[in-house]
Amino acid sequence: MDALYPPGSGLAPPELLASLSGLEFMQRLCSGALPPPPIAVTLQFGIASVERGHVVVTSRAGAHAYNPMGTLHGGYAATLLDTCMGCAVMTTLERGSLYTTLELKVNYLRALTHDSGELRAVGRVLHAGRRTALAEGRLFDAANRLVAHGTTTCLVYAA
Amino acid sequence: MDALYPPGSGLAPPELLASLSGLEFMQRLCSGALPPPPIAVTLQFGIASVERGHVVVTSRAGAHAYNPMGTLHGGYAATLLDTCMGCAVMTTLERGSLYTTLELKVNYLRALTHDSGELRAVGRVLHAGRRTALAEGRLFDAANRLVAHGTTTCLVYAA
Amino acid sequence: MDALYPPGSGLAPPELLASLSGLEFMQRLCSGALPPPPIAVTLQFGIASVERGHVVVTSRAGAHAYNPMGTLHGGYAATLLDTCMGCAVMTTLERGSLYTTLELKVNYLRALTHDSGELRAVGRVLHAGRRTALAEGRLFDAANRLVAHGTTTCLVYAA
Amino acid sequence: MDALYPPGSGLAPPELLASLSGLEFMQRLCSGALPPPPIAVTLQFGIASVERGHVVVTSRAGAHAYNPMGTLHGGYAATLLDTCMGCAVMTTLERGSLYTTLELKVNYLRALTHDSGELRAVGRVLHAGRRTALAEGRLFDAANRLVAHGTTTCLVYAA
Repeated sequence: MDALYPPGSGLAPPELLASLSGLEFMQRLCSGALPPPPIAVTLQFGIASVERGHVVVTSRAGAHAYNPMGTLHGGYAATLLDTCMGCAVMTTLERGSLYTTLELKVNYLRALTHDSGELRAVGRVLHAGRRTALAEGRLFDAANRLVAHGTTTCLVYAA
Repeated sequence: MDALYPPGSGLAPPELLASLSGLEFMQRLCSGALPPPPIAVTLQFGIASVERGHVVVTSRAGAHAYNPMGTLHGGYAATLLDTCMGCAVMTTLERGSLYTTLELKVNYLRALTHDSGELRAVGRVLHAGRRTALAEGRLFDAANRLVAHGTTTCLVYAA
Repeated sequence: MDALYPPGSGLAPPELLASLSGLEFMQRLCSGALPPPPIAVTLQFGIASVERGHVVVTSRAGAHAYNPMGTLHGGYAATLLDTCMGCAVMTTLERGSLYTTLELKVNYLRALTHDSGELRAVGRVLHAGRRTALAEGRLFDAANRLVAHGTTTCLVYAA
Repeated sequence: MDALYPPGSGLAPPELLASLSGLEFMQRLCSGALPPPPIAVTLQFGIASVERGHVVVTSRAGAHAYNPMGTLHGGYAATLLDTCMGCAVMTTLERGSLYTTLELKVNYLRALTHDSGELRAVGRVLHAGRRTALAEGRLFDAANRLVAHGTTTCLVYAA
């Protein structure tokens, strides 16, 4: 099965995951102490910064994610926003807690192309409750224009 | 630039796009008369069937789209749903009209893994207006369980 | 405090609520064995039918809910959809379980006025899980045209 | 027909609406130069402040909007958020432009009761485009806690 992962990617060892807080886990992903997950290699994005309740994901808008019209597929922006928001929620979880995404909402404001340059997806936690969390995300192009906006609801549970 | 597209993928020639109705265009994508777009090759999904207002996208849940926890990244389901719904809207457009996605909403019901098998995303148009369209999408796993649900609002415009 | 309720309305006695399944509770609201809640009297809507996973709410589009432009305020359709979907979720709950709404999404397709006549909001459960439920809702005017569409995620918990 | 409006409420005269920018119109609603719309009297809320791209709506959480469980119906928060966001979009429109709401998304964070006191719904425009606008809204209770969050997409058109 490991052979199917893109080269250089990997999963988080479950026992390691269970031994860290969400913030510690995200810091290790960001620093490279843990390998990037398969989806990040496939879609070419990475974690750029991690703080409690605030995570930035960066990516270079590339032709590998084009739709038939020659703009970035909407699923690409959705993936970046889902990532930055979910990771932001993760940073608020104590050791022994995990989350799963219940719903994702994305608003698209501008089309993206290869010329949009480096994309920056900024996730921020709006509410970290005992059972659920709400986060919002903002996606900016290299010219720092808001190109998409997202919100997400996550369910928090004991791992 | 073409060199950056995944092998076997390509864009729709704009002059061809302008000469076809949305349904004709989608039928050519589905039949293979047009090459799959880059995102479809990168994420390994394809158009399985096309009717007016109804499009099915299929994909094999694969480890290339895993998140760190070893389940499919939420952006993957979002991409399949965005595709089947947007394509369903496309089939309702006359020649000379195009659409852009304004917003996408996804609800996640079950985690997906490699063992989920072939995924089937079914997009259906609920409302095809002069200026906007609304579609819903349902994602099923190989056991035919509903694993995610989506809605999308598209803006229709003269190309 | 009761004095503030609109005449004819009331709350559900908590001890009764705790003794019934969600379906039994909704059947009593629908039959009139329980008084309509305050919001239903204020906004003039009612429960028209109740089955497991399926609830219909009806209302006469009225000028009491107009916005400044002389059409029904978007919050009115949102309220009808939230009601029919939440009530549909309620009908799937065993005695001892309750729900709370995590998020509500509404798409507006047509403006409503007094001339739209009797509105019918149909809520249907798409997924009834142990911890969460997903429902969709469709709002029709008297001419049976789809005028708005909704989805909602509810959190289920032990009361 | 006017007889059906709640006492003290009214619509905006269309010819006045056509002669004002969106900001001027909202300022007149806020100052009382224009009567409150029917829905505002029925549900007891009002416009508290208006700036370009930023509108605050206030309301006293009241038993008239209770659901059967004795908390404020979710449609009430949805109405306040829809109002503050739509009004914020309105303030960005030039004379001769109007908007219609395409979709509304609300996340609920805390239950509201009569004891929640004065509610404050703050709408802010995130993107004001030529054809569409995106706004977000935040609802606070009297203790200044975030109790609900919303986003909305509006379609802008020539009146």
